[in-house]
Amino acid sequence: MKNIYKFFPVLLFAVSAGAAVQAQTIQQYVSKNDKKLMEEYIQFLSIPNVSTDTVNIRKNAAFIQEMMERKGIKAELLNGTTPGVTPAVFGEIKTPGATKTLGFYAHYDGQPVNPKQWHEGLDPFKPVLLTGSLENGGKIMGPYKNGDAINPEWRIAGRGSADDKAGVMAIINAYEALVKTGKKLQVNIKFLFEGEEEVGSIHLDEIFKKHKAKLQADSWIVVDGPRHVSGKKTIVFGVRGDVNMALTTYGAKRPLHSGNYGNWAPNPALKMVQLLASMKDNKGNVLIKGFYDDVTPLTSSEKKAMAQIPDQDVLLKKELGVHTPENSERSLMEGVMIPTLNINGIQSANVGALAGNIIPTKAEVALDLRLVKGNDHRKQAQKVIDHIKSEGYHVVTTEPTEEERSKYANLIKVEVKHGYNAQRTPMDLPISRSVQAAVQSTIKEPLVLIPTMGGSLPLYLFEEILETKVITVPIVNYDNNQHAENENVRIGYLWEGIETIAAIMQIK
Amino acid sequence: MKNIYKFFPVLLFAVSAGAAVQAQTIQQYVSKNDKKLMEEYIQFLSIPNVSTDTVNIRKNAAFIQEMMERKGIKAELLNGTTPGVTPAVFGEIKTPGATKTLGFYAHYDGQPVNPKQWHEGLDPFKPVLLTGSLENGGKIMGPYKNGDAINPEWRIAGRGSADDKAGVMAIINAYEALVKTGKKLQVNIKFLFEGEEEVGSIHLDEIFKKHKAKLQADSWIVVDGPRHVSGKKTIVFGVRGDVNMALTTYGAKRPLHSGNYGNWAPNPALKMVQLLASMKDNKGNVLIKGFYDDVTPLTSSEKKAMAQIPDQDVLLKKELGVHTPENSERSLMEGVMIPTLNINGIQSANVGALAGNIIPTKAEVALDLRLVKGNDHRKQAQKVIDHIKSEGYHVVTTEPTEEERSKYANLIKVEVKHGYNAQRTPMDLPISRSVQAAVQSTIKEPLVLIPTMGGSLPLYLFEEILETKVITVPIVNYDNNQHAENENVRIGYLWEGIETIAAIMQIK
Repeated sequence: MKNIYKFFPVLLFAVSAGAAVQAQTIQQYVSKNDKKLMEEYIQFLSIPNVSTDTVNIRKNAAFIQEMMERKGIKAELLNGTTPGVTPAVFGEIKTPGATKTLGFYAHYDGQPVNPKQWHEGLDPFKPVLLTGSLENGGKIMGPYKNGDAINPEWRIAGRGSADDKAGVMAIINAYEALVKTGKKLQVNIKFLFEGEEEVGSIHLDEIFKKHKAKLQADSWIVVDGPRHVSGKKTIVFGVRGDVNMALTTYGAKRPLHSGNYGNWAPNPALKMVQLLASMKDNKGNVLIKGFYDDVTPLTSSEKKAMAQIPDQDVLLKKELGVHTPENSERSLMEGVMIPTLNINGIQSANVGALAGNIIPTKAEVALDLRLVKGNDHRKQAQKVIDHIKSEGYHVVTTEPTEEERSKYANLIKVEVKHGYNAQRTPMDLPISRSVQAAVQSTIKEPLVLIPTMGGSLPLYLFEEILETKVITVPIVNYDNNQHAENENVRIGYLWEGIETIAAIMQIK
Repeated sequence: MKNIYKFFPVLLFAVSAGAAVQAQTIQQYVSKNDKKLMEEYIQFLSIPNVSTDTVNIRKNAAFIQEMMERKGIKAELLNGTTPGVTPAVFGEIKTPGATKTLGFYAHYDGQPVNPKQWHEGLDPFKPVLLTGSLENGGKIMGPYKNGDAINPEWRIAGRGSADDKAGVMAIINAYEALVKTGKKLQVNIKFLFEGEEEVGSIHLDEIFKKHKAKLQADSWIVVDGPRHVSGKKTIVFGVRGDVNMALTTYGAKRPLHSGNYGNWAPNPALKMVQLLASMKDNKGNVLIKGFYDDVTPLTSSEKKAMAQIPDQDVLLKKELGVHTPENSERSLMEGVMIPTLNINGIQSANVGALAGNIIPTKAEVALDLRLVKGNDHRKQAQKVIDHIKSEGYHVVTTEPTEEERSKYANLIKVEVKHGYNAQRTPMDLPISRSVQAAVQSTIKEPLVLIPTMGGSLPLYLFEEILETKVITVPIVNYDNNQHAENENVRIGYLWEGIETIAAIMQIK
């Protein structure tokens, strides 16, 4: 594969010097090559990519590196300063005479999987085709057979299919499509594919600092997250920040018979539900002191964009089976503009067939705090800790000792995970307008412009360390089960994603 | 083995006609035969006995039947009227000239197991020895090697080791010990070993009705549950009733990204914690309307016995790592005299390493309601349902339909499992006094007499269907992790259990 790379610059020049091509060229190229693209993507999705699975995660990095080189992009692995951590994959294309540089970022790692929770017939790392969304009557078709015709309405199910191997796939293939169709580049292009995004990009700062010169660009385009619910092409100018917390309450040292000890032994599940219930009311309002302080107000152009975002709540309610939102007076997009407190998961002993008549020894909760511009992740987590203390808890950060257990009636372990702040790029900067024009050139109907998406990416690092702007271009379907079981991507959106990225790469 | 049985009546007569034996004979017999008893018990514990594992549960019944016949008790399987359900094992010894009949009951099935939650080195169905309680510094010694000397302080760890194969083992071996040591019986003895106790004895009523004549006895002695915390021999005159409930709240139809949908999509875990928090305050008081009504007050002899129960709370608090009980103004035994509402388990999505940044689709809770004399299990469950409704929920009993989802903002599935009522035998009946005297004859220090134990057994069926009295004689250690992981029995208590039951079998 490396031989191809060696001759590539010559080939590129020759093709670039060819005749002018039509606006639909990329679309035609994708359509003609869909089976090849599919085969390659299925291979990619078959490599397990849970962030903490360090052996497999490196296989993903190697796969990407080889894929890039096969398509004429010299690629290398970038490490941070901490030894042994997951590398990012970097690549660069220098365009003769170009004065500007555009970077393209996506991540190749995925959220944890609990295969038992996936639909029968689905396996996180054995991708299969679906005729549509399973929740809306889609059927499982089985694995893709090489060479078979592909319906863009179909979906590919597997961890990372939408979040965010789709981004990696679209970026690399957009470049190849430009080369193969003889489009001439006017800017330098850089590629960066991270492998630790789903664990909070814990070493991205190191990589940025160590390779600051290499990663310099006028702007980075982040390809991640879902399009607007309307299915329209979308550009997002900001992301929420995020910090996770893990809480553990304690009961007796061993599980107790609920008959022999019921009414006497403290139940950690009861303590946990009482504590959580004190944090949020049944109108979706967080009751923690100062929780909504620190929020930076929207600018007038952001407010204007907000007003033009198509309504999605009616469709979403129906599609998701939501009768009434948490707060019935707030739209989805209005909710995105304020911080959240979400219970990601709760567990104490067992339920269903495994349930025993016991008083559990502990109750565990995973919390997720989404942050908006103005919030500081450490301060936001501290507000939760202060609230827990105000509810009478003694807070420890590691498993409590015998002495701590004997000393405090209400004991809780609080672990604050790695967090990061929100980021928002002004929508009226020249680069913001250029990206907007490029994506708009691929379709007739108006784009959806969103000041801040609901999801999180550590985009503040681009601003703070690389001192560059960052704009997010999501390409996948909104109903992709991102972060959960049965993750899937609508194939047509993968193809359109390639066209979208190719258009942005042609910015002058 | 059946050949032995055929000759047994002759052998029994011959031994019974022998010389008078000392009071310590049974103790000496057990001491001399401890290795044989151990080997047999380990074999018994190695047969998986989760109530719902119908294949293995029958292997347990077959093992018991063979064990009884080997020891001279003609045994048969008793079925109810529902086809195919787990049989009980019945046996009978007719004593020449006897006018009274004592029945002995235990159950051979066990609670569900989640092997992952067991201590490293323990397996629910591969019993091993411990030097003591794991929570208090006991070490795992590995499997018992046939012929090795046995320290009665050691424990055997495995599902059913305490609850309640210990009861089956003690009853059958008490009878064999009497025969082998030439003790003369004065009453007829019946044996009944049930295989569905841990799923609420769902067919015991059928068995009782169908075999009422066969199961007739002046009194049934139930060997189940733990001794008093002081370790003193204990007789219990009543049990609590029990009913389980399973609750499920619902969110969107598919798991949602907590960033994209946070602050908008209802979180079923939040709904569940708010609902549960509304049921009980942080002083351990159930807030459900009428929850403590219907309770029959204690009689004067029950109150007197209550006053003489040794204090156990101080020891328990230390041993269990409990700083403050649920209600600090109530002793453990006082709590046993009123109904409970306990969270057995709660689960929504995942916690720890498996947690994802999602809004879960559902939250599940297993509740346990313990009942005291006066409570009706259907009525008690209905009080909980009425409370749930008063909190604004629409209650369904099966998975909600699309129509129900679209119709109700607050939807909950409530499953009321099979339940049964409490039972209490007056402590001053002649049989109550005889059992008390028999057990007292085996030790010098005073017995502990408990009006009602905290645990539950369907003992009301003995009164209602068999029209007989029932008294419970628990034999195992209180710290046995009954119903949970790492269940274990102190070996010395097994041996003493054989002595205790043998003494009761000699009642005139």
